[in-house]
Amino acid sequence: MKLKIKNFNWHAGKPVVFLNEKTAIKMNVFVDDRVAITNSKKIYAIVDIFSKMVKQNEIGVSHELNRIIKLKSGSLVEVSSSEISDASFLIKKKLNGKTLSQKDLNFLISEIVHNNLTEAEIAFFTAAQKLNGMEFEETINLTKAMVKTGSKLKFKGKYVANKHCIGGVAGNRTTPIIIAICASIGIKLPKTSSRAITSASGTADVIETIADVKLSLKKITKMVEKQNACLAWGGSLGLAPSDDKIIQVERLLNLDIEPQLLASIMSKKIATGAKHILIDIPYGHGAKVRDLARAQRLGRKFYKIAKRFKLKMKVVYTSGDQPVGNGIGPVLEMLDVLAVLQGNGPEDLKQKSLYLATELTKLCGIKNAKKKVEDAFFSGKAYEKFKEIINAQNGKKNFDKKVSKLKLAKFEKIIPAKKSGEIIYISNKGINSLCRILGTPETISAGVYLHRHLSKVKKGEPLLTLYTESKTKMKDALRFLEEFKPIEIK
Amino acid sequence: MKLKIKNFNWHAGKPVVFLNEKTAIKMNVFVDDRVAITNSKKIYAIVDIFSKMVKQNEIGVSHELNRIIKLKSGSLVEVSSSEISDASFLIKKKLNGKTLSQKDLNFLISEIVHNNLTEAEIAFFTAAQKLNGMEFEETINLTKAMVKTGSKLKFKGKYVANKHCIGGVAGNRTTPIIIAICASIGIKLPKTSSRAITSASGTADVIETIADVKLSLKKITKMVEKQNACLAWGGSLGLAPSDDKIIQVERLLNLDIEPQLLASIMSKKIATGAKHILIDIPYGHGAKVRDLARAQRLGRKFYKIAKRFKLKMKVVYTSGDQPVGNGIGPVLEMLDVLAVLQGNGPEDLKQKSLYLATELTKLCGIKNAKKKVEDAFFSGKAYEKFKEIINAQNGKKNFDKKVSKLKLAKFEKIIPAKKSGEIIYISNKGINSLCRILGTPETISAGVYLHRHLSKVKKGEPLLTLYTESKTKMKDALRFLEEFKPIEIK
Repeated sequence: MKLKIKNFNWHAGKPVVFLNEKTAIKMNVFVDDRVAITNSKKIYAIVDIFSKMVKQNEIGVSHELNRIIKLKSGSLVEVSSSEISDASFLIKKKLNGKTLSQKDLNFLISEIVHNNLTEAEIAFFTAAQKLNGMEFEETINLTKAMVKTGSKLKFKGKYVANKHCIGGVAGNRTTPIIIAICASIGIKLPKTSSRAITSASGTADVIETIADVKLSLKKITKMVEKQNACLAWGGSLGLAPSDDKIIQVERLLNLDIEPQLLASIMSKKIATGAKHILIDIPYGHGAKVRDLARAQRLGRKFYKIAKRFKLKMKVVYTSGDQPVGNGIGPVLEMLDVLAVLQGNGPEDLKQKSLYLATELTKLCGIKNAKKKVEDAFFSGKAYEKFKEIINAQNGKKNFDKKVSKLKLAKFEKIIPAKKSGEIIYISNKGINSLCRILGTPETISAGVYLHRHLSKVKKGEPLLTLYTESKTKMKDALRFLEEFKPIEIK
Repeated sequence: MKLKIKNFNWHAGKPVVFLNEKTAIKMNVFVDDRVAITNSKKIYAIVDIFSKMVKQNEIGVSHELNRIIKLKSGSLVEVSSSEISDASFLIKKKLNGKTLSQKDLNFLISEIVHNNLTEAEIAFFTAAQKLNGMEFEETINLTKAMVKTGSKLKFKGKYVANKHCIGGVAGNRTTPIIIAICASIGIKLPKTSSRAITSASGTADVIETIADVKLSLKKITKMVEKQNACLAWGGSLGLAPSDDKIIQVERLLNLDIEPQLLASIMSKKIATGAKHILIDIPYGHGAKVRDLARAQRLGRKFYKIAKRFKLKMKVVYTSGDQPVGNGIGPVLEMLDVLAVLQGNGPEDLKQKSLYLATELTKLCGIKNAKKKVEDAFFSGKAYEKFKEIINAQNGKKNFDKKVSKLKLAKFEKIIPAKKSGEIIYISNKGINSLCRILGTPETISAGVYLHRHLSKVKKGEPLLTLYTESKTKMKDALRFLEEFKPIEIK
């Protein structure tokens, strides 16, 4: 049926169409059914019925769908009812303990990308992955399907690399430093990062305090060719796009499902065109991975997958026992990053960044990696490269101006040690929660400054400073500190 | 925050509120978050943002939510952001293979009833039930939780009974006949039935061809006290209401999950106040349950649950190898029911109904059950009771008028046997699909009339007649018959 587009500035959270009830009856669809809209290709959307807003010859289009089909109000499109996806058969197959083939997974993932599956169906798939597991070949095939259904970047040159950290450690903002160092010695790094999901801030949130992170694929390509690197937000780029939808569902229960995690990380990196990949797995009390044995078990799987995709890989296992760096929160972390790049800043963040940069450089097969990394860092070349990247992302040379405008929140409170002794525990989770109570990541100026890491401390010495723009949030944070004690002195 | 209700005639498929973007920011909620609306009790709904439709001091309310909160436009309500439900923790617990306690299940099911869980979260719960199973005590506790979170009927007298069929057999409309017989001999039967989900028609669809089936709980109570029985649609009564929401999710993949099936059936029957319950499990080639052993395994579980709830139970195992009765489709099945009640009609439907009515009567402890059932049936007493029930449901004595208006679809086509031989297979699924192609259950006059069951047939003798209101559908049905051959002659 030909219908006339009517765009609504309506954030439905997903691609939705509004139909007049009479049109819906004619098409034999009802609320929550799917329709296919054929423009240059087929796009699927969920049906809502609202006769007062759309005429019989019209189809109302939600904001999210409009962003996909990009048609003006008044344009004619072909709309047809969409059969219940055969993907449901494949999900049932997986729920029943069977192995999905490459063909199965290609279809299933493509259906997810084309919005032809509901969140509940994706949840069934995810639960089946968790409870029935996935064979190694299946994980490989899932990764391939996830790459195949999205855009893919390609760069010339020997040294196209990328890095990823499994996460779970507060602060730990090594990425901008590593990227600056490695880009300055000739490695190409099309780096995309996420925003915070449950943590105090993500790399994209931190970079956004001084630079635009919503880059197009075209801009990324241009930057990597010219500046050797970018520090982009990965969210809307369409690199392995099924991943975002699957993560959205997993997040409902805060699930970490190993085959999905592996395929998710690897597909994103492969889609950026990287040939050398460094994976950082922090482990320890309070990190995502509890101990070295578990970290290595996961690491071996990364190596195995990398081998199948003919990628060079290095997995490093780092300490995840406490936060890395002093600032936790978007602006606080950026200040740490800037200080380190200028040769000052927290020593732990500096050492870890130099270590990871050296490993990544070695992995690329560049000789004298350690010396080259240290030269780039201590000569200030890396800092210059960082400025260059930020200016390129902003499209003008405003690095100094942006940095001068960085400001911490107006309310601050120093928390002193209640007794003398040894700090034996700083909870990553607790510090993250504390930051979120103080307003991160939305309030970029909020967060926590850690004066001490695991070390001896005297009664009355400052442990941490809290930053927030709201008195109520400060009160809540103090109450949280009182109750949960994220730092333990013995 | 106090907001003014603005009712929309908007079928969102679930309880949804519309907020102005500024209000949403103030409340710190976004699209797909949940809010709590406090009126006399707390009700939860999903957030959508549409600044053009609602002012800052307003809250738009979808049709589904309006049906729950029942407030006029302009009423003031308290609206607050709702924390992510702790139920997600419980679902994760079940996904991780743990057993849920009575307290856990009470909370989880109550969250489902109050719309505080998304369909994806329910899908995770359902998948966990399927893959990790449920212990017997857990199934009992689930049943209790499902009863507890809904309305409950209570009737005086010794003989309050109910019946349920697992389904999967085309036609098989025994319920109206059994209810008429048993009600006429003094058994109270607050019978609620469902509409067709994937079959050609449900009992509610069949009864609706001559009577109102959307009864209130008050009306049901009154009818059971006066006429001994009703034949209501169970959909909107709020008896074990979590069930409907869980089924809606299971249906996405056509899943049958045993502990959920058991709890679902038992909770609905318990909520109607029944003390004697008859369960019909058809088994055989093409039925839901493949063989007698499986049927008995399921049956034993029903007995075990019934014992715990101190209910009298009888499980009968019947042949599900072929459709029961001749008519398949709402009007066609009603014509079979009427014919049987008048002493004519398909012999298989009559015999099965008499058998089940006898078993139910025996179960109630009534002596000479077989004779009493036959007397009620052959004397016409059961038919009179049926008329009485229909008239009571309609609120006027219009039984004859309603029956006289029953009409089959205008296009009909007789399909003859292509060769002489033995009919060795009639697929329940195939006949159901055929009916749905012809337009059932929406088109009540459509469907299939089976001239023959499993028996010898001569070439050219009529096998079935197709009924539909649409020439295109007839064409599609003939194509389906050609391709899928739901009837096999050897």
